[in-house]
Amino acid sequence: MNGEHYIAGDWGTSRLRLSLCRGDRVLETLQGPGIGALREPAGEALRPLIAGWRQAHGPLPILLCGMAGARNGWREAPYLPCPVDLRALGAAALRFEADQAPVAISPGLSCRSRLGSPDVMRGEETQIAGALALHPGLGAGRHLLCLPGTHTKWAHLQDGQVCDFVTALTGELFAMLRDSSTLMRAAPAGLEAQSASDDSRDGFERGIEDAAAPGDSSLLHCLFGVRSRQLIDGCSRTWALSYLSGLLIGTDVRGAIPLFAAGTEAVVIGDGALNERYACALRREGIAASCLDGEQCALAGLRTLWQS
Amino acid sequence: MNGEHYIAGDWGTSRLRLSLCRGDRVLETLQGPGIGALREPAGEALRPLIAGWRQAHGPLPILLCGMAGARNGWREAPYLPCPVDLRALGAAALRFEADQAPVAISPGLSCRSRLGSPDVMRGEETQIAGALALHPGLGAGRHLLCLPGTHTKWAHLQDGQVCDFVTALTGELFAMLRDSSTLMRAAPAGLEAQSASDDSRDGFERGIEDAAAPGDSSLLHCLFGVRSRQLIDGCSRTWALSYLSGLLIGTDVRGAIPLFAAGTEAVVIGDGALNERYACALRREGIAASCLDGEQCALAGLRTLWQS
Repeated sequence: MNGEHYIAGDWGTSRLRLSLCRGDRVLETLQGPGIGALREPAGEALRPLIAGWRQAHGPLPILLCGMAGARNGWREAPYLPCPVDLRALGAAALRFEADQAPVAISPGLSCRSRLGSPDVMRGEETQIAGALALHPGLGAGRHLLCLPGTHTKWAHLQDGQVCDFVTALTGELFAMLRDSSTLMRAAPAGLEAQSASDDSRDGFERGIEDAAAPGDSSLLHCLFGVRSRQLIDGCSRTWALSYLSGLLIGTDVRGAIPLFAAGTEAVVIGDGALNERYACALRREGIAASCLDGEQCALAGLRTLWQS
Repeated sequence: MNGEHYIAGDWGTSRLRLSLCRGDRVLETLQGPGIGALREPAGEALRPLIAGWRQAHGPLPILLCGMAGARNGWREAPYLPCPVDLRALGAAALRFEADQAPVAISPGLSCRSRLGSPDVMRGEETQIAGALALHPGLGAGRHLLCLPGTHTKWAHLQDGQVCDFVTALTGELFAMLRDSSTLMRAAPAGLEAQSASDDSRDGFERGIEDAAAPGDSSLLHCLFGVRSRQLIDGCSRTWALSYLSGLLIGTDVRGAIPLFAAGTEAVVIGDGALNERYACALRREGIAASCLDGEQCALAGLRTLWQS
């Protein structure tokens, strides 16, 4: 497919990111509404978005991951139960034709947690497949992958197979606590940071430290400090938000420690700034982390759908 | 004050509960807006609410606790730094006159947590003072008090003194996750419980069990099960809400375990149904709990303001 144009997209609940690609190069990108915001069928919502690309290049192949394959998405691509070898993700893609263009949608993955809860992912499996394509060394041995986000995923990879994974509500909880809780409605005068970058670093580091404090296993008992340190100690809003982020990421990482076998390193796949925060919390627990760009992994994973 | 009428009130952020009392009897009750919802000064907001009682009985003494004493309340009653002997709460009350009626407002308490965070309470100190008045045995030896609510408080009582306390965001987090998260927007068909009371009990018990599972210290990693058990396993909404409640209360109780010295029992002060949920989670950890009614304790505490 080196010379051919195609469209690659991660269609999540809250947004759509589409790229016009040729080979492994991204020529153009655009954003659209998430699956959760659609009032018309997904195929109809997509048509006007890609009309310009189609006019220029004809009916282009469309490769999608994420909620596009959910029951309320474009067409349902059922979950693959773990263990799943992601080097064969393309073989399990849902394929059909729309407006004379071939479409492939990644299936999601499902598993059972240690506690018996079912767990699911949609979109992250394509990032993991992309990480395997870009870094074939990940296909040998055991690795623990961390994909930070609204719903952070921790996945065990063994010889290229996803064995199991667990979802942490870290990002969603951060956004809720920031926007809707009493924690950030604290300082009446709206104290601002003296130095935003210093306050941000200090707050985050204090948060991961408090989350890791021995004998205190409960996030619930630390959260009120986000409010009281503003109200009583005069900490800035910037400091408090970073402290909240540190508490949540630190708790997430600390809860994931039992997932690590001795000597396992972590591979963090996501947005650069968030990757760095997770890597920092992992180092605090003595775990080495390497970081991969989530968008590049998603694109590489989508390419594997086509190549199969 | 046996023969006299007086008004006792717990004026919180989100609501006001007022009682017309005589001696230790409540004659009438009414509800009003919380301090957070007021557009006029608190004293002016109170006047029309108690006009009927005043007409019948003259300018009655008014005893208040909660946010009435906050900076944005009626008048600020500064925090007392712990340790504080609550049998002397009345001596520290803020006293003034309004419309020819004597007013007394409980001060709040403040302390520093083990992690260095400042912590504060307003209202719970009056419930604790009331518990001491109703159960003088609590004034001797060491007790751990649990006051469940939007912000659950865990307080150490030593020979009648509050030594320190910690706030857990349990109730606020429960309400946010119930009303605004993806966790409870799961079942598209709105699965209803076969037997609501069975589902409720089963869900709650499973929640406290999962929160206590050894090696899994992270609430973050369990929460997604609230959604996935509805989506994949077909659990009812009733079950899922009780599971969420069990996860949060179980995590709160588990995080409080380091606060217990060997052999300490817990005294739970609050609303009956919530008390029972905390007592259940405490028993799961091998800790005996006795429950006291929060409103009765608040009224008894407010009476001590007057008697001093």
